[in-house]
Amino acid sequence: MTFEIQHTDPNSNARAGKITTDHGVIETPIFMPVGTVASVKAVHFHELKEDIKAQIILGNTYHLYLRPGIDTLERAGGLHKFNGWDKPILTDSGGYQVFSLSGNRKLKEEGATFRSHIDGSKHLFTPENVVDIQRIIGADIIMAFDECTPGTADFAYAKKSMELTHRWLERGLNRFDQTEPKYGYSQTYFPIVQGCVYPELRRQSAEFIASQHREGYAIGGLAVGEPTEIMYEMIEVVNEILPKDKPRYLMGVGTPQNILEAIERGVDMFDCVMPTRNGRNGMLFTSQGIMNMKNEKWKNDFSPLDEFGTSYVDKAYSKAYLRHLFISKEYLALQIASIHNLAFYLWLVGEARSHIQAGDFSSWKRGMVEQLGRRL
Amino acid sequence: MTFEIQHTDPNSNARAGKITTDHGVIETPIFMPVGTVASVKAVHFHELKEDIKAQIILGNTYHLYLRPGIDTLERAGGLHKFNGWDKPILTDSGGYQVFSLSGNRKLKEEGATFRSHIDGSKHLFTPENVVDIQRIIGADIIMAFDECTPGTADFAYAKKSMELTHRWLERGLNRFDQTEPKYGYSQTYFPIVQGCVYPELRRQSAEFIASQHREGYAIGGLAVGEPTEIMYEMIEVVNEILPKDKPRYLMGVGTPQNILEAIERGVDMFDCVMPTRNGRNGMLFTSQGIMNMKNEKWKNDFSPLDEFGTSYVDKAYSKAYLRHLFISKEYLALQIASIHNLAFYLWLVGEARSHIQAGDFSSWKRGMVEQLGRRL
Repeated sequence: MTFEIQHTDPNSNARAGKITTDHGVIETPIFMPVGTVASVKAVHFHELKEDIKAQIILGNTYHLYLRPGIDTLERAGGLHKFNGWDKPILTDSGGYQVFSLSGNRKLKEEGATFRSHIDGSKHLFTPENVVDIQRIIGADIIMAFDECTPGTADFAYAKKSMELTHRWLERGLNRFDQTEPKYGYSQTYFPIVQGCVYPELRRQSAEFIASQHREGYAIGGLAVGEPTEIMYEMIEVVNEILPKDKPRYLMGVGTPQNILEAIERGVDMFDCVMPTRNGRNGMLFTSQGIMNMKNEKWKNDFSPLDEFGTSYVDKAYSKAYLRHLFISKEYLALQIASIHNLAFYLWLVGEARSHIQAGDFSSWKRGMVEQLGRRL
Repeated sequence: MTFEIQHTDPNSNARAGKITTDHGVIETPIFMPVGTVASVKAVHFHELKEDIKAQIILGNTYHLYLRPGIDTLERAGGLHKFNGWDKPILTDSGGYQVFSLSGNRKLKEEGATFRSHIDGSKHLFTPENVVDIQRIIGADIIMAFDECTPGTADFAYAKKSMELTHRWLERGLNRFDQTEPKYGYSQTYFPIVQGCVYPELRRQSAEFIASQHREGYAIGGLAVGEPTEIMYEMIEVVNEILPKDKPRYLMGVGTPQNILEAIERGVDMFDCVMPTRNGRNGMLFTSQGIMNMKNEKWKNDFSPLDEFGTSYVDKAYSKAYLRHLFISKEYLALQIASIHNLAFYLWLVGEARSHIQAGDFSSWKRGMVEQLGRRL
């Protein structure tokens, strides 16, 4: 994997770049749709590629490990072959889901034991075996196994947690460096900065992580309960230390506004379930603001879903029709909303990139952040 | 609306024809996907048109009347404008849903009172107002309001029910003939033959219905609990009487085998929820037989979903992947299965048409019926 910075914004830390993987090029800043269980919910892959214009998607190691399981993924020749997505894939390490979804989880030095949220079966994730699992999944970008410290943790817990994450990182990197990709294309390994809301810990973590000299770095443990301003501050603290010439991935963030603020602070990659999950609940993000599609006000509004939208659904369906589908609990509602929101997120990071290239990112961002927050 | 018979099978009553409406041509025999509440569940309209190759879809008056409601449909300029489907639409009269879905229904000479299955509100359908409603929906083909007699009714009940349906027909036709289409294109009105499983009643009903001299005729009250052989016998009885030069629509039927048998007996039009509903439960119809996609046997079968299938999903996704989506309860499973099954149904009636044109329908049908019944 290589990364090339193509433009930097004169008035901020925003950058436009290009990641090259064996499954193709990713233009940054980029948003990665979340394909939890080998599918981006309610979206066909050709829609992801041709309409939404996704360049990379995310898979969840925890979910894929449980279903379809590593044996099936290995027989398929990896996740790309299994679901037919032939562009880059990034997999998280499963740590976040172990703590948020599974039952009876126990953290030990060795790793984390947990019970499947599906059938209660008992499993162990270690820094080493999540490398092995991601090798088998065949992710282009493999994430380190970390403890995602809650945003409300006290300093002592956050420090202990960060130190564990660092020890796990060394073990994971050892395993990664001693093993080979299984399917003939390169894989790379991103370490994750933790440190909760404490600048001192974030700095320590960023320094430790940067000293590993890897091809990219992630910032984890944000947007997990802390105030937004603290999240932005932590990004600033960390990005002062992370090498400028490598991509920076802010995990699990966030709203369109969060993404623009983070781009301004030098982040290159994002993922979040918000466009699909909120979309399934009837919330549409647009360049003009947010629409709640279940609202009575759209009942007889036959104008196109989003006149400024870039997806075909924005012109093919009206606001009144989508409202009707939500009120009638039709599957098509989920499909249309998911496509729209993902296409909007991809449009937004593409626009950010264009404005970085044009040199007017910061002023564009100010106006856009204001628009994005409106309720339509 | 016009109907032209293009070919008749030398060895059976099967015919290939062409229905011309103001929204375009329908080549018969044809299957009509069911778009219950203004959407064919889990399927985009461009997929219906371009991939599935649907030529006409069905809407349910009962559902559309309750949601989005007649006021919204009228403001939209009719259902075609509301959901963007610009090819022909047929609407049922709502009678079937009143009896199968709604609560507290009461049959009177005037019509049927019922309570909405959604909010319990009280409504009245009459032969006249369901014409008005279908005028507002803007269906190309409007169905008469009838009582769908249960397949298990005794002769006395079936006779009384049929006579009510006949009186309702005259009232409905009066209203239809005294009113105009609302949106500038033609609408036509199909009477419905009832008579349960009693040849004598079916004959009486077909004669009464045929004497109305309409542009098409429907056969109702079949596949509602009676043995399949009785259904085929009733179709034969009725089609001996219905005029040969008008399209015949067998309502709510059925399996792929049912459809071929009915085509052989001179039926031209079909609708059924089976391809979508069974599809959502994991049952796939193929030219080689039936597949239960939740079956363990597909777990590691990475071959294309249906190597003989005509939809893009048949090549884009594997059996193992679709099984995984069903097991993981992913929305994409419902989407893929619905598209596949509808494309298969449309392929099947298209093949039937080709074989009628080629003159070898009956022998092709025999082999196909055998294949269709297999469990893969």
